[in-house]
Amino acid sequence: MTTIKAYAATAPKSPLQPFEYEPGPLGDDQVDVAVSYCGICHSDLSMIENEWGMTAYPLVAGHEVIGAVTAVGDHVKNLKVGQTVGVGWYSGSCMSCQQCMSGDHNLCATAEATIIHRHGGFATSVRALSSWVVPLPEGIDAAKAGPLFCGGITVFNPILQFGIKPTDRVGVIGIGGLGHMALKFLHAWGCDVVAFTSSDSKREEALQLGANRVVNSRNPDDLNKLAGSLNFILSTVNVSLDWQTLIGALAPKGRLHTVGAVAEPVSLAAFPMLVGQRSFSGSPLGSPATTATMLEFAARHGIAPTTEHFPMSKINDALEHLKSGQARYRIVLENDLN
Amino acid sequence: MTTIKAYAATAPKSPLQPFEYEPGPLGDDQVDVAVSYCGICHSDLSMIENEWGMTAYPLVAGHEVIGAVTAVGDHVKNLKVGQTVGVGWYSGSCMSCQQCMSGDHNLCATAEATIIHRHGGFATSVRALSSWVVPLPEGIDAAKAGPLFCGGITVFNPILQFGIKPTDRVGVIGIGGLGHMALKFLHAWGCDVVAFTSSDSKREEALQLGANRVVNSRNPDDLNKLAGSLNFILSTVNVSLDWQTLIGALAPKGRLHTVGAVAEPVSLAAFPMLVGQRSFSGSPLGSPATTATMLEFAARHGIAPTTEHFPMSKINDALEHLKSGQARYRIVLENDLN
Repeated sequence: MTTIKAYAATAPKSPLQPFEYEPGPLGDDQVDVAVSYCGICHSDLSMIENEWGMTAYPLVAGHEVIGAVTAVGDHVKNLKVGQTVGVGWYSGSCMSCQQCMSGDHNLCATAEATIIHRHGGFATSVRALSSWVVPLPEGIDAAKAGPLFCGGITVFNPILQFGIKPTDRVGVIGIGGLGHMALKFLHAWGCDVVAFTSSDSKREEALQLGANRVVNSRNPDDLNKLAGSLNFILSTVNVSLDWQTLIGALAPKGRLHTVGAVAEPVSLAAFPMLVGQRSFSGSPLGSPATTATMLEFAARHGIAPTTEHFPMSKINDALEHLKSGQARYRIVLENDLN
Repeated sequence: MTTIKAYAATAPKSPLQPFEYEPGPLGDDQVDVAVSYCGICHSDLSMIENEWGMTAYPLVAGHEVIGAVTAVGDHVKNLKVGQTVGVGWYSGSCMSCQQCMSGDHNLCATAEATIIHRHGGFATSVRALSSWVVPLPEGIDAAKAGPLFCGGITVFNPILQFGIKPTDRVGVIGIGGLGHMALKFLHAWGCDVVAFTSSDSKREEALQLGANRVVNSRNPDDLNKLAGSLNFILSTVNVSLDWQTLIGALAPKGRLHTVGAVAEPVSLAAFPMLVGQRSFSGSPLGSPATTATMLEFAARHGIAPTTEHFPMSKINDALEHLKSGQARYRIVLENDLN
């Protein structure tokens, strides 16, 4: 057992500070992973700033981890020391409830979040239940793969869960850390992909990321032209939208799906839902099995997050860059702690 | 061509009056159906009273028609004179759009409603596009079958569309004209069925109709006990409900589905939708093919609407009975016009 070096938040609005902790004895079903790379997600910022009122300081954030397995518990069968793996938002679940037993571990009511139930990846090492640790297949670039384990699986999961077809017309709202990966996945999926953005500067980028068309989500004319056309709209933002117009953009049997935890209630008129047999839904991340499926698909299609890299020792600079809204599109920390 | 005798609304809040009209020449793809029985639906009342602001008087309502085919157009292949058939809310669609060509005729943007685009079934005869006229199979009681063609298909359709499984736990909100048929269908489907009603008088009846349990939808304790348990909730009412508690009653991956056109927006918090991968949706009636599937299922399981019968000449008494809320559960008019 080695002391873990990390960067911890000790209070809201304060720079992260060097921090050390002892992980304690490794559980029989757990593994330790030496952090090589760790992406930064907006939810790391939310936890650091205690926006959700649930942060216990000191907090070691970071939940888009790539690294090598350094230790495995006595009962671990699926992993070996030395394997390159990833750990995401969740790093444990009960493994015995109806959801876990159905392959929907991500819907386990007692799933453990990497930066809530334990210390996270802005550190030399993280610990996780072995079932939640997924090996990187051949063809995945470890340096860029971290964001697949939170942002990536969050947008990939509903595409698989709801049976999106290559013949579908789909929309992606919000071309950022999550949305840019959704464009790449849906392009490779074979869909007709419309990017919704309010940023003119992202128009050209969205086309390069895989969109067939870009609409300005603040331009009612643009939105009205889409009326009745989209089979699936994936919203990656957590602000209130013009839900009625978006429902109107759905084809019959279409689905408006959010992975953004909008704080204000979503208000939907029943009548357009009825006449078009439309659905509104949400989802959290994905299961370990879906994550493995995503990685295989990403490897086959050469899909990687578009990343900017900082050494972990510059983590406070990296966090400022994320806050500025200038990141294109996901920041990855390269570990220089030792 | 024979003059059609009917009962028509001539103004809101007035009794229906005897009325005659000439149907004009029969289209090549149309059929005429002599009305033997016609159910009364709440939407007949809404149209008679011009609640939706779209009524053109004189209006002949009635869209749960059972009767014999009396004439077929030159191009009609699926029906013969003398066959006993049903006609429901829709009696035509374009037959050429993507929805019609996909078997989703009920989602056709130009589908024709029996009591809006033509005169309806409170009459000696109705006319319809032959594709929308569905023969009654053996084992269906013509005298009770009318309500299957609107109320029945409205609740049967989402059960089929969304792949409800016999192993599912389901809830039905509103034990009335639609809800009582939903209980019968879902009981025969093999589900664990919970009836939601605010009426103590309907508790025992709901159990007899097929519910395994009954909860008082105005009792928060009753609702809270269901938390996380239901795979599918079908709401048949058109009033605002405690949407948040209902979403909370859904199991992971559960669906809250409304067939009631609630006027007020439905307000949903995003977070519980996300963490449980839950859906909210709506649907209108069903296609002719789904209607035929429903009739076959109803015949095999001996399912018929629970009806009260009035002669058509007493139509104003029947409408008053429906308005009183005392109908158990659907009124059928027996034609005594000639």
